[in-house]
Amino acid sequence: MNEEICVRFGEKLRNTRLELGYSQEELSFKTGLHRTYISSVERGKRNVSLTNIKKLADALGLKMKDLMPEL
Amino acid sequence: MNEEICVRFGEKLRNTRLELGYSQEELSFKTGLHRTYISSVERGKRNVSLTNIKKLADALGLKMKDLMPEL
Repeated sequence: MNEEICVRFGEKLRNTRLELGYSQEELSFKTGLHRTYISSVERGKRNVSLTNIKKLADALGLKMKDLMPEL
Repeated sequence: MNEEICVRFGEKLRNTRLELGYSQEELSFKTGLHRTYISSVERGKRNVSLTNIKKLADALGLKMKDLMPEL
């Protein structure tokens, strides 16, 4: 899986996480998702689905739409 | 799959599709996704992933964030 949309979502997640000052480990702990999964999402390797987008948004204190890239 | 987020996404998709005046058949044709898949998404039965959210948004002339429920 290396579609442009996955790459753009991963970039958006990574930039947002860093802006908010979280490490991948912290985001992993808050979401219950494995750190290596978070890492692969940020590298655009995962076609993330609604339930995990929601977990990521909740952990960052955001709405789901705030994690959507401008596409 | 019947998580609240999937139900809320399905409602948002259905309401948006109807506001824009598309049938499920038309949305199916424009996305390349099967009509029964569109139907199950709208009933909250699918954990839709980024690539299909993108197809649905493109077919409706929207950004992906415009299809995200307020969650």
